[in-house]
Amino acid sequence: MSNHFADRFTQAVKDKGTPICVGLDPRLDQIPSQIKDKNPNPADALLAFNKGIIDAVHDLVPVVKPQVAFYEIYGADGMKAYSETLKYASSKGLITIADVKRNDIGSTAAGYAQAYLEKGAPFEADSLTLNAYLGWDGIEPFVEKARANGKGMFILVKTSNPSSADLQDVQMSDGRTNYEIMGSYVDSWGADDIGESGYSFVGAVVGATFPRQAAKLREIMPNTIFLVPGYGAQGGGAEDVKPCFKDGVGAIVNSSRGITFAYEKMDGFDEKTYAEAARKAVLMMKEDLAGVL
Amino acid sequence: MSNHFADRFTQAVKDKGTPICVGLDPRLDQIPSQIKDKNPNPADALLAFNKGIIDAVHDLVPVVKPQVAFYEIYGADGMKAYSETLKYASSKGLITIADVKRNDIGSTAAGYAQAYLEKGAPFEADSLTLNAYLGWDGIEPFVEKARANGKGMFILVKTSNPSSADLQDVQMSDGRTNYEIMGSYVDSWGADDIGESGYSFVGAVVGATFPRQAAKLREIMPNTIFLVPGYGAQGGGAEDVKPCFKDGVGAIVNSSRGITFAYEKMDGFDEKTYAEAARKAVLMMKEDLAGVL
Repeated sequence: MSNHFADRFTQAVKDKGTPICVGLDPRLDQIPSQIKDKNPNPADALLAFNKGIIDAVHDLVPVVKPQVAFYEIYGADGMKAYSETLKYASSKGLITIADVKRNDIGSTAAGYAQAYLEKGAPFEADSLTLNAYLGWDGIEPFVEKARANGKGMFILVKTSNPSSADLQDVQMSDGRTNYEIMGSYVDSWGADDIGESGYSFVGAVVGATFPRQAAKLREIMPNTIFLVPGYGAQGGGAEDVKPCFKDGVGAIVNSSRGITFAYEKMDGFDEKTYAEAARKAVLMMKEDLAGVL
Repeated sequence: MSNHFADRFTQAVKDKGTPICVGLDPRLDQIPSQIKDKNPNPADALLAFNKGIIDAVHDLVPVVKPQVAFYEIYGADGMKAYSETLKYASSKGLITIADVKRNDIGSTAAGYAQAYLEKGAPFEADSLTLNAYLGWDGIEPFVEKARANGKGMFILVKTSNPSSADLQDVQMSDGRTNYEIMGSYVDSWGADDIGESGYSFVGAVVGATFPRQAAKLREIMPNTIFLVPGYGAQGGGAEDVKPCFKDGVGAIVNSSRGITFAYEKMDGFDEKTYAEAARKAVLMMKEDLAGVL
């Protein structure tokens, strides 16, 4: 099999039969008490909770995305839990996205690339999220490291939050918006290394909450994989994510709270059965997405 | 004394008589061998190196800024060194800027705010750097937490790297550039809480390498403190940073490699005297800046 990130990614989605990414954003106050009782150190509780989720869904989904803020809260211990979460997910055959939205000038970006995309690095992941407000030279070190190691990245283009319009929707003198300009950059940054799957290893983050903008971006970025947050808790539905796909592929839809803390809202489950609830939530999301793709 | 971040900041600059920020971006291959011999764990070497620098310059400068990428390379151990560096700098009376350029949607941004701006948090700092590509609701949790705790922040407006023009200099339909639009946002986000010093707790990052743009931003943001990277190793000189100031105050100029690794380039010093070299480099920078301010 090709070691190109987009090919590994596309194959994983095909193997599992659904484009679902589970966001691992553990909030201590929502972690079941039986886990916290056994793990008095919060960072240990985060890791134990994540392992329970991963065990319950790894045969169903291709991708997981731990969001680092929820681990940084617990300092170095939390970052150890972050590292162990990435390792555990990887050992279960899952593609990992380190959701860190890193960004800096070139010489510093090289440091981040070493921390996340180097083989054997403490936070090694298959890919990471980036913010390209600084332009190309802040992205280049990630592109180089990713290309060398069969890794990938997802760059913020049109984010799912209400205020994303503040800067991203501002219209330029040539008629395009900032998110369209960013989309063109992202497309070009990966254009010289397209995998057999037809996709590049430089992906884009495009929110499920803005389907009209997503449709425009799908045209601008024909070879780009879309990471789509905003489904579920943030308000996006299956119809909303549809424009992110191209013939049913080329995108991955993330759900975090809606899956990991499904036990709080789903009839017939409680904190003891949080993992089973997460599994059921994945199966429901799979059906929901299958209805439109 | 007022607990408002801008007032503490302005007083510290006045007390030390120079607007210098020392960037603590330790690269293992440039750390003197006597430190690495004593500290076989790289993270310990980073911390020991930083303590040597802080001891040598804390009576001369008001602010230090550790860049987190250089610590993340060493995983959880590195993040412990990051936490300890912030604590040590703080114990020596220095104002700290956690250079982390964090950014995310509101609910996640709240996690970062807790990790960096909460009293007693593992990575507690006086302020942090942020990227506002996501707009207001990704910044709001930091503003709230900072206001409650007498903390501050510096938001990327016009960065010092060559490719910053890619997005930041694009011109909008109303004639303004993206960096001007971002500057207006940053100014407005801090406008309702100006300290006795005349400055707000929401600062801006404006690179020393673009003096013409800095002059324009100084007009757009009359009450904003500028954090100015790009002096020294990146090519900015004293004349270049001058437009970032207002009557000689309201800005802080960062130098990282030019100070911490001065021993490599300065006559009469070697790795054994790296701390003395850093002190001399600070004194030279102080004189250089005093010549134009």
